[in-house]
Amino acid sequence: MALGIGDDAAVLNVTPGQQLVMASDTLVAGVHFPETASGREVATRSLCVNLSDMAAMGAKPRWFTLALTLPRDKANAEWLADFSAGLGDIAKQYDVALVGGDTTSGPLTLTLSLVGEVPVGEALTRSGAGSGDSVFVTGYLGDGAAALELLINDFADHTDSDRLLRRFYCPEPQIQAGLKLRSIASACIDISDGLMADLGHICKASGVTAVIQTEQLPIAAEILERSPLDALEWALCGGDDYQLCFTVAADQLAKVEALIDLGELDARRIGTIKPGDQSIITVSVIDKNNTLLTVVKPGYNHFSH
Amino acid sequence: MALGIGDDAAVLNVTPGQQLVMASDTLVAGVHFPETASGREVATRSLCVNLSDMAAMGAKPRWFTLALTLPRDKANAEWLADFSAGLGDIAKQYDVALVGGDTTSGPLTLTLSLVGEVPVGEALTRSGAGSGDSVFVTGYLGDGAAALELLINDFADHTDSDRLLRRFYCPEPQIQAGLKLRSIASACIDISDGLMADLGHICKASGVTAVIQTEQLPIAAEILERSPLDALEWALCGGDDYQLCFTVAADQLAKVEALIDLGELDARRIGTIKPGDQSIITVSVIDKNNTLLTVVKPGYNHFSH
Repeated sequence: MALGIGDDAAVLNVTPGQQLVMASDTLVAGVHFPETASGREVATRSLCVNLSDMAAMGAKPRWFTLALTLPRDKANAEWLADFSAGLGDIAKQYDVALVGGDTTSGPLTLTLSLVGEVPVGEALTRSGAGSGDSVFVTGYLGDGAAALELLINDFADHTDSDRLLRRFYCPEPQIQAGLKLRSIASACIDISDGLMADLGHICKASGVTAVIQTEQLPIAAEILERSPLDALEWALCGGDDYQLCFTVAADQLAKVEALIDLGELDARRIGTIKPGDQSIITVSVIDKNNTLLTVVKPGYNHFSH
Repeated sequence: MALGIGDDAAVLNVTPGQQLVMASDTLVAGVHFPETASGREVATRSLCVNLSDMAAMGAKPRWFTLALTLPRDKANAEWLADFSAGLGDIAKQYDVALVGGDTTSGPLTLTLSLVGEVPVGEALTRSGAGSGDSVFVTGYLGDGAAALELLINDFADHTDSDRLLRRFYCPEPQIQAGLKLRSIASACIDISDGLMADLGHICKASGVTAVIQTEQLPIAAEILERSPLDALEWALCGGDDYQLCFTVAADQLAKVEALIDLGELDARRIGTIKPGDQSIITVSVIDKNNTLLTVVKPGYNHFSH
């Protein structure tokens, strides 16, 4: 950057031919992460969750500011060193620079504002899905919900706890997947509120409906084995997965399949976009026998069952 | 903008040939404004204070995000309508667009992140002041401190209360002054912590010292008349004025004087930059008889007397 932390503001050089992508997200202790989370855990989760919005837009993250509200018991060198180390690790991993911010005293709260870049006209949005498009998701679904249950119920003997805690505190923002999907995906969103809710946002913005096939949903073997009764609900309705859900038109399908076959994109097809109009937009779930399991209708901000 | 609120992030078109200027600031109820402030007052103060950082950089503000943490007693249509109207008025006045944000539940806290533009290489910084430069300030000093005392002591009969409350809740970010000072001022800062502290930041960043003449300090007649004993301290050390303090080299002085004479810049000369080295950087204050009144030494983040 041209000028970093220490002046009234940072001065940043934009890459010619790029549009900016800008988003802010707030995380509050006790709401978005447990009060007992370490400084490192707070930092890594906050930055990863915010980076996920950049992934959903197909943007390359460049810069961020951090507004940190700290209670007295955490305003000490040890907590801050742990926090800074975690923030620095994720920033380095995803090549994004902290360019400014503010610290205030109060209940532990973080607001991150990220700015990324995308070539003009290539940002992925929620509004481009069309009838006949295939619906894909990256990675596994349901890990976020499983991790949340682990954190709430504190299973000391949980066999999958290391993997799930890593998923919760270091969800992997799908930046590389987002970059590869530019000019291939017709619509894209990150799964923060759960697949049904977030695919619902795509349907609402695009004026279409969707049908999801349960047997195609990617669920980690550990979850299916340990929590077979919860697995499907977690995959469909659990939040905090920070995977991408995206749609692909028929003429782009071969490109996505090639990326998957080459191991360059970890994604699978889970359903199909169908025609819809603004009054009857739904996401339907069918099992392997084509039996309709549930139909949900996207509301303004969330699903009402 | 290319894509606004409602997707995972906003997509923004940068003007070719411009650098970005980015800053974030948090305001907390009971710390940065009284708990009793109205929704409109909270909104206007928060946006004006954040815009002031853009003014200090000589940047044209373009976009902002808002992270709003709201307590239950304010999460109602009336408070939000009042808040939104205030935010909208200031955004319109300064031609800056709200492009995203987040709302959470908790003690009233706002984090605004602003992005502005400045032609490449023309951002005003703190580090360019040189020995022999003149020191200027815009507008009046001490209004912020006088307003704070009014708010704390709640003078029902205060003759200047309307003007001072407006100064506190709608401080005028000096955006136009900042734009005019591009490629004229050698250094610039906005006065949020008080003249001595903020001029001290310029001195520290530039490796110089400064001498301020008290009889040149612009203090509103109402303050001098009502609070003659406090006026000088408020002007020197009071915060929240959100005026600009800037330095001008001898070869640019005629341009600044011309702007002032033409009524295009409301500013006056208050002192001179002197040589300094990192170990003895000071800001000295002298009266009209050249008697030294006080010397302060800028610390890492604030002045220690």
